[in-house]
Amino acid sequence: MKRFMVVLTYDGHGYYGFQRQKGNLKSIQGEVEKALTLINKSKVEIVGAGRTDKGVHALGQVLHFDIDSNMNATQYKKALNSLLKKDIRILKVKEVNQNFHARFSKGIKTYFYLINLGEYDLFKRNYIYQYNAMLDIDKMKEAAKLFVGVHDFRNFCAAEKEDIVDYKREIFSIDFILKKDILKIEIKGNGFLRYMVRMIVGVLIEIGKKRKNIDYVKERLDKNKLIRSNYKAPSEGLYLKEIKYE
Amino acid sequence: MKRFMVVLTYDGHGYYGFQRQKGNLKSIQGEVEKALTLINKSKVEIVGAGRTDKGVHALGQVLHFDIDSNMNATQYKKALNSLLKKDIRILKVKEVNQNFHARFSKGIKTYFYLINLGEYDLFKRNYIYQYNAMLDIDKMKEAAKLFVGVHDFRNFCAAEKEDIVDYKREIFSIDFILKKDILKIEIKGNGFLRYMVRMIVGVLIEIGKKRKNIDYVKERLDKNKLIRSNYKAPSEGLYLKEIKYE
Repeated sequence: MKRFMVVLTYDGHGYYGFQRQKGNLKSIQGEVEKALTLINKSKVEIVGAGRTDKGVHALGQVLHFDIDSNMNATQYKKALNSLLKKDIRILKVKEVNQNFHARFSKGIKTYFYLINLGEYDLFKRNYIYQYNAMLDIDKMKEAAKLFVGVHDFRNFCAAEKEDIVDYKREIFSIDFILKKDILKIEIKGNGFLRYMVRMIVGVLIEIGKKRKNIDYVKERLDKNKLIRSNYKAPSEGLYLKEIKYE
Repeated sequence: MKRFMVVLTYDGHGYYGFQRQKGNLKSIQGEVEKALTLINKSKVEIVGAGRTDKGVHALGQVLHFDIDSNMNATQYKKALNSLLKKDIRILKVKEVNQNFHARFSKGIKTYFYLINLGEYDLFKRNYIYQYNAMLDIDKMKEAAKLFVGVHDFRNFCAAEKEDIVDYKREIFSIDFILKKDILKIEIKGNGFLRYMVRMIVGVLIEIGKKRKNIDYVKERLDKNKLIRSNYKAPSEGLYLKEIKYE
């Protein structure tokens, strides 16, 4: 049995997220598994590093799969790219040992979020959040600092039915890059809860609009209070940039 | 009866071209007429300056419509944008006199075509032709000069069932702009036959690949020969940039 690690990029528009869906809903996992199953002539399941939501893009998502096969990494890359549609591309396939696990191996994840502060651009509407107005970036930077470090993020993630034991995550950095009218907010961390990046960016946007102030964040980073943040940035601006495993 | 001129931009991906289609096929004309008919509470038909093909984009398409109404240009712009989907935007509405005709009034049309000579970019696959290899741009420029001026373009357009009386058109300029890996070919002329821009760009790409030489063009610009050119660049790279009426 061999284990292969795969790095892939995809345009999340038109997909119901990374995770396999019931029925005929298109997912990244579903498409990759369909292709691998065709190649292998029997069912193959994959394990993704993380589940990007509906409409979220990836430049360097990672997954692994186990397979009993004579094919090598180069052959899988070629075969997958020839079967997959043009909106999913396999960038790298590498044989790894069984210690590697796309989801559980430790790594640093980087996401970025794009906001258009300038005029509405209809050609980018599925790829950059069209806010189309100015934001107070200095105030956003100040608030962003509060998130850096180890925090309990229970107020900045999806309300889950199941109890997640640990809401603690570490954010290493949040950087702001303004290029022409496009604001890029890049967030590095050791792991992210569901909706966490979009909820951090969501509240930063509210602060940039001056509708909320820094205390709104402070209050919600207090793990003793359950007062979930109300703002989630739309999916089209979000990109999973890369995952660097230790 | 008032006549309004409209300037609009659209993302042609997902549309079966500008022209109204039979059945449920989405067209730009169909969407705009649907919106105008809703506003007017009775059927309104529009006249477009030119018919962009399936998948072709526009930054400044022009159309006009006649209507018996108390609404002014500003009100039409607002009402149309609130009804149209986010992939069609009305940039300008202006009341004009009955002498103006979007199709028959004389004007200069500018199209441009985008080609990615660098690595495949899946996020741009519907907006820039992904050629993803080098082209000999000097050879392309040399061949492009042959098209400039008044020519009979019967060999660089769609084979039509009906007899078009006059295949003569004037091209004012063809410019090449290379920015990073994106080659932009901008073509100005007094009018274009169906597929004409894509067939000009198509043969220029063949010449850039060094698969055809300049004689291939020369031979086909001879109006006495009916030897249609074989190359048509894909629709996703083409943009109707603007129309300047005299």
